[in-house]
Amino acid sequence: MHRKPSYHEGRRHLRRPSLMRGQSHGPIPGSRGDLRFIPLGGCGEVQRSTYVYEYNDDIVIIDMGLQFPDEDMPGIDYLIANVEYLKPRKKNIRGIIITHGHYDHFGAIPHLLDSLGNPPIFATALTRGMIMKRQEDFKHLPKPRIELITTESKVRLGNFLAEFYHINHNIPDSVGVVLRTPVGTVVHTGDFKFDPQPVSEATADLHRIAEIGHQGVLLLVSESTDADSPGHQISETEVQKTIEEIFKVAPGRIIAATFASLITRLQQLIWLSEKYGRKVALEGFSIKQNVAVAQELGYLKVRKGTIIDTKDIHRYKESEITILCTGAQGEDRAALMRIANNEHRLITIQPKDSVVFSSSVIPGNENSVQRLKDTLYKRAGKVYHYATMDIHSGGHAKQDELTQMIKLTKPKYMIPIHGNYFMLKIHSELAEKAGIPKERIIIAEDGEIVSMNREGIRKLKERAPTDYVMVDGLGVGDVKEVVIRDRQHLAEDGIFVIITIVDAKTGKVKTSPDIISRGFIYLKESQELLREVRKRTRTIVEGLTTGPTRPIDWNYVKDEVREKIGQFLFNKTARRPMVLPVVIEV
Amino acid sequence: MHRKPSYHEGRRHLRRPSLMRGQSHGPIPGSRGDLRFIPLGGCGEVQRSTYVYEYNDDIVIIDMGLQFPDEDMPGIDYLIANVEYLKPRKKNIRGIIITHGHYDHFGAIPHLLDSLGNPPIFATALTRGMIMKRQEDFKHLPKPRIELITTESKVRLGNFLAEFYHINHNIPDSVGVVLRTPVGTVVHTGDFKFDPQPVSEATADLHRIAEIGHQGVLLLVSESTDADSPGHQISETEVQKTIEEIFKVAPGRIIAATFASLITRLQQLIWLSEKYGRKVALEGFSIKQNVAVAQELGYLKVRKGTIIDTKDIHRYKESEITILCTGAQGEDRAALMRIANNEHRLITIQPKDSVVFSSSVIPGNENSVQRLKDTLYKRAGKVYHYATMDIHSGGHAKQDELTQMIKLTKPKYMIPIHGNYFMLKIHSELAEKAGIPKERIIIAEDGEIVSMNREGIRKLKERAPTDYVMVDGLGVGDVKEVVIRDRQHLAEDGIFVIITIVDAKTGKVKTSPDIISRGFIYLKESQELLREVRKRTRTIVEGLTTGPTRPIDWNYVKDEVREKIGQFLFNKTARRPMVLPVVIEV
Repeated sequence: MHRKPSYHEGRRHLRRPSLMRGQSHGPIPGSRGDLRFIPLGGCGEVQRSTYVYEYNDDIVIIDMGLQFPDEDMPGIDYLIANVEYLKPRKKNIRGIIITHGHYDHFGAIPHLLDSLGNPPIFATALTRGMIMKRQEDFKHLPKPRIELITTESKVRLGNFLAEFYHINHNIPDSVGVVLRTPVGTVVHTGDFKFDPQPVSEATADLHRIAEIGHQGVLLLVSESTDADSPGHQISETEVQKTIEEIFKVAPGRIIAATFASLITRLQQLIWLSEKYGRKVALEGFSIKQNVAVAQELGYLKVRKGTIIDTKDIHRYKESEITILCTGAQGEDRAALMRIANNEHRLITIQPKDSVVFSSSVIPGNENSVQRLKDTLYKRAGKVYHYATMDIHSGGHAKQDELTQMIKLTKPKYMIPIHGNYFMLKIHSELAEKAGIPKERIIIAEDGEIVSMNREGIRKLKERAPTDYVMVDGLGVGDVKEVVIRDRQHLAEDGIFVIITIVDAKTGKVKTSPDIISRGFIYLKESQELLREVRKRTRTIVEGLTTGPTRPIDWNYVKDEVREKIGQFLFNKTARRPMVLPVVIEV
Repeated sequence: MHRKPSYHEGRRHLRRPSLMRGQSHGPIPGSRGDLRFIPLGGCGEVQRSTYVYEYNDDIVIIDMGLQFPDEDMPGIDYLIANVEYLKPRKKNIRGIIITHGHYDHFGAIPHLLDSLGNPPIFATALTRGMIMKRQEDFKHLPKPRIELITTESKVRLGNFLAEFYHINHNIPDSVGVVLRTPVGTVVHTGDFKFDPQPVSEATADLHRIAEIGHQGVLLLVSESTDADSPGHQISETEVQKTIEEIFKVAPGRIIAATFASLITRLQQLIWLSEKYGRKVALEGFSIKQNVAVAQELGYLKVRKGTIIDTKDIHRYKESEITILCTGAQGEDRAALMRIANNEHRLITIQPKDSVVFSSSVIPGNENSVQRLKDTLYKRAGKVYHYATMDIHSGGHAKQDELTQMIKLTKPKYMIPIHGNYFMLKIHSELAEKAGIPKERIIIAEDGEIVSMNREGIRKLKERAPTDYVMVDGLGVGDVKEVVIRDRQHLAEDGIFVIITIVDAKTGKVKTSPDIISRGFIYLKESQELLREVRKRTRTIVEGLTTGPTRPIDWNYVKDEVREKIGQFLFNKTARRPMVLPVVIEV
């Protein structure tokens, strides 16, 4: 396979890495001199993107993201990649490339960077701005070293040479990565879509991608978020036109909720507000933060005077106001929920308001969104939702675009990433239909190690560790699965603590046992049950402590109380609270 | 308004109730002689249907259903209607009409019937079968009196005369209700759709509905589940054709998951199995139960020998087996989840299996379904899902059908029911478009009382109580909201119990305080934190107990420990476990 990278102006590294000349090895990939690909996050879920490329003693990491936990992990803030595989190899890490400024692609940096020896980070200007902004929440950490890249850059990272190409997503300055390796060229897409009519940026650089394909691509690593959606993503221009229809007819304020990270959508809403003579108030910490960063770096164009403080909205007519806010997912404390529930200091819903949900619903949030919609339908004049109107376009390639990416890059091998397993599987079927032989398409799950050379590609038996690493408050990894199981149990039926004081001399229970219970039953109406529990506890304990047997096996006493009182409570209520007996000898 | 009910054969009550002749009153509805409609469940949510019609001293209830709790009510089995409004009026209850055999329409009967004085229930044969089957789980309760109705019946219920008409739903023998009242005729739709080509039943009786409309309808009370979906529900015949395509190509077993209550879907899958030479094994308690009831009553046609025991499936070729199972919602312990996770005694997923999800996803279950799909895509040959293929049709009228119902019945007043508020609102907008003046359309939420006569309709100021009634294990209503809040708190950050023994004489803390914590932090790795808590607790307690002040305010001591240790734990971990101090004086 002959590679002839076309050099651009603005390149950072002129020297062609000598090792890039063919160093391919035997037919069974897995040995030194082969290229390894190891997803540590993102292959099995749509979040937590963390992809490792390893060639001999060089490691390049693409993205380092967060995952928001499922509803069965109560109290957990988020999950991050398990980097045990990388720790003993940290001296080999040449750099971390961040493809774009979304938390699921860079949010784990503050939690992991130090443990990886603080390697340099490479990011475009807006992405760097987003990373630095988040870093302000971690003032005790050293500032990360972030080197600026553009689509003109070439970055030498040991045996790797990294280049970048422009794609469309719903945040500007997103890139795909071309990794030139001694084994061949890898195209790693990042999150992408091909928008023929994007707003506030150019169309994805199809020429460049085609050119890379023409030079020869060993491996395409491509995102799968929308692999089960046929067709092509709606253009942002179409979305903007539909939203404009709302601006044309809205009699009062427009309250538009979206993700704070959808900078492109915020731009559209700001432009339309300017066109229709509306001032814009921002509500929600993250939206204010992101607008500030994007505006400062020139990625968000706002006329002077457009953005006003929420406390000044009363100075304008209702038809002159747009409110951009967070909370389209029905999040409890987000701006839209507070506004809807009359808990916002300055804004309450008025009958003339038009509320616009301009984002999709993340699986798992449907119930909260339904409740929020209920509240808004009661109070607002009009509610517009993406399910019934094209007022949102996802940031991810649908089937036609994914196929187009495969056809443009013409890779020898293909690995689908960034998806639940079923999405990866559907994407692999698309790749097969697009002409890649089945044996050259590898579905790798988090922790699996794919090794390849020019002769072949396969998964190794060896695996990288992938036990969950949970972030809860200040703790990273200190919440183990047993803690989560306890939380689930506590949530189901609550807790029931019984404290018994035993006289060391007589073995008799001193005073009546104390009971503390939470989340089990409404205690005020259950005095009879509690009396019975106290009586039974005394009987169980004294049965074991007043006899001649010495020394007393206190663990056995506690086990007996736990089991017998647990059974008694179950018989009475069909519930199984966590019973915690405390027996104290005095 | 002149009513002329067309009498059918098989009628139960020949006498036209004398009170049905016009007895209309003054222009302001709300007085004696007016008709009241009170939703106690179902107006604000898609479940928990419980609708009350009241005329002077007569009450008729339509449906008495369950609601499955949201994810923020941990441990709760279900919610049922609050019937405080009915209790003082129970002698007036003439009967409960159940429109069809789904839990969200009859499941609360065992929990509520006794408190309402055990009024008679009216149901069609299959519905009665489903109610009686569920009643077997409540052997301690008296058997309910259920009187059989058909679409020919006329049931006198005090001042009300009830008739029934045939509609389509995804369980056979579903009916709509016509209530002849002294004020006028009410059409109460139940759950319905109009299927031009239904399977195993006749098309909804449009002629009958039109005839009722022609006679004059005072009030249409119509379901709203799919009010935000444009168009017309797909015909079951179309669904069956699409499923048949799967039967034509499946190389191995077909594993089809659906709701146990979708009797119509089960019938289709059984017919197709018979056509393609497959035996059918049933997996899941509720599916076996429902098939038994429906088969016994003749609502499910199965050839002798079609249904086999799961333990016999190995006697047939894989291509001769269909497995019908529960678990299409990703429920933890349901058959499909156990099969997918290799936890089923007799069935594991094989590479040649075709898995069919033939039901929609209930909002809130998306995450579980995604995880289940992931597992199945890894192990099964082919996974078919309703989102990508027309292998499911909902049981509820979409916008065209809802409009058709309005146009057929031509009601004077209209009340949308059976939906979240936003669905009711959208349905009310449809009704307006269909020609009903806005002021004659009432959106009533649970507990609101609508009063009407021939001159007008309005909501009264008076409301029926609607505080949640939660069923948890054997308890009905003994879990109050404070218990739920505790469960939520416990689930977030766990519990932290500190037990301190204080010497009554000296005020000194005897031995080191005991700590029991669950769901907060992994204790084995947090010994340093626990040591510090013990030390601080001792200092806090002794600071208050070793001084001269007597008597000691033990509640204040506990409050101090709770607050200071809580703050300390938060500073160290950014978590807020529930801190429960126990101070014992010995």
